[in-house]
Amino acid sequence: MDRMDRQFNFLRETDGLKQIVRQSYLADGSRKENDAEHSWHLAIMAVLLSEYADKDIDVLRVITMVLIHDIVELDAGDTYAYDTAGNATKREREVKAADRIFNMLPKDQAAYLRDIWEEFEACSTKEAAFANTLDKLQPLMLNDASCGKSWKEHGVKLPQVLNRNKNTAEGSEELWQYAMKNFIEPNVKNGILKEH
Amino acid sequence: MDRMDRQFNFLRETDGLKQIVRQSYLADGSRKENDAEHSWHLAIMAVLLSEYADKDIDVLRVITMVLIHDIVELDAGDTYAYDTAGNATKREREVKAADRIFNMLPKDQAAYLRDIWEEFEACSTKEAAFANTLDKLQPLMLNDASCGKSWKEHGVKLPQVLNRNKNTAEGSEELWQYAMKNFIEPNVKNGILKEH
Repeated sequence: MDRMDRQFNFLRETDGLKQIVRQSYLADGSRKENDAEHSWHLAIMAVLLSEYADKDIDVLRVITMVLIHDIVELDAGDTYAYDTAGNATKREREVKAADRIFNMLPKDQAAYLRDIWEEFEACSTKEAAFANTLDKLQPLMLNDASCGKSWKEHGVKLPQVLNRNKNTAEGSEELWQYAMKNFIEPNVKNGILKEH
Repeated sequence: MDRMDRQFNFLRETDGLKQIVRQSYLADGSRKENDAEHSWHLAIMAVLLSEYADKDIDVLRVITMVLIHDIVELDAGDTYAYDTAGNATKREREVKAADRIFNMLPKDQAAYLRDIWEEFEACSTKEAAFANTLDKLQPLMLNDASCGKSWKEHGVKLPQVLNRNKNTAEGSEELWQYAMKNFIEPNVKNGILKEH
């Protein structure tokens, strides 16, 4: 198959990410967001917030990472952060999805995106650490903006949020402190995030 | 106001782009796409297709450009490509929107994004020419994938598509030739895009 055909087949296939629904609500609480919208939001965050990264990062690599980090969910579906059973099989499902989807591309680009995805999953570089910080911060921001709608829907408690975010500060201590003060603590005070 | 507060206010405001509906349907024709989804799709295209740019381009600048190119539509709304009356007032509405929205950011970032947006609008650089090529190519790809659903809905004809795309080849002759052969010509042959 021609190189450009492969690239456009991949682009049409990934159009499906616009239909993979996440558990976070839009800021106004009107509906849940999808993976394409989430990935776009993270990319804008990377543009504006990279100045807070604890280490000097390659911003283009971070943006590419957040743009493609959820593509495996085309086959594997979105696994909710607080779904224990789902998370136990997540890696296996996502690797199978990565094998199929990235290999739709020409070999060099398949390897390039697969490497970036594995780097994100392993959180093995400073770029991956910062991408992970953004990926954790964005739903905190949306949960706070939508009066904890998704947290309330799932009965999420403070210890779960803190456990989910145990590595969030690794990409940016400053952003994590901001999130604690502005997105988490107010929702503990107002009783949305219960301590026990 | 604190720098980080301004940045997060902007990020919450731009969440609204997930609710600005465009006229292009998703590839499977199930619903129309929104600006956030469209911008994400263009950014992925920039990652994968920049090798076809006619000139050596700064990929990070192109990606940043496509990520933010529709933010003015938060206030100005989406103006359909073939809406003559809407397009007559588009520039005025969008400049007003840009004045408000970009200025939510700290001054340096407001100026940075405003410059990138004006560069895109004026199509004044090789990066803007390539971003424009992607912005025109993506709806052609989706129209073809969805059996011309949006073209049929609006009674769009071939001369309108060609006029709309009179500068599309400027960013990449090779991508434009591919689009002509794969997205436009088949839809002329099958009668979806009428010649008169």
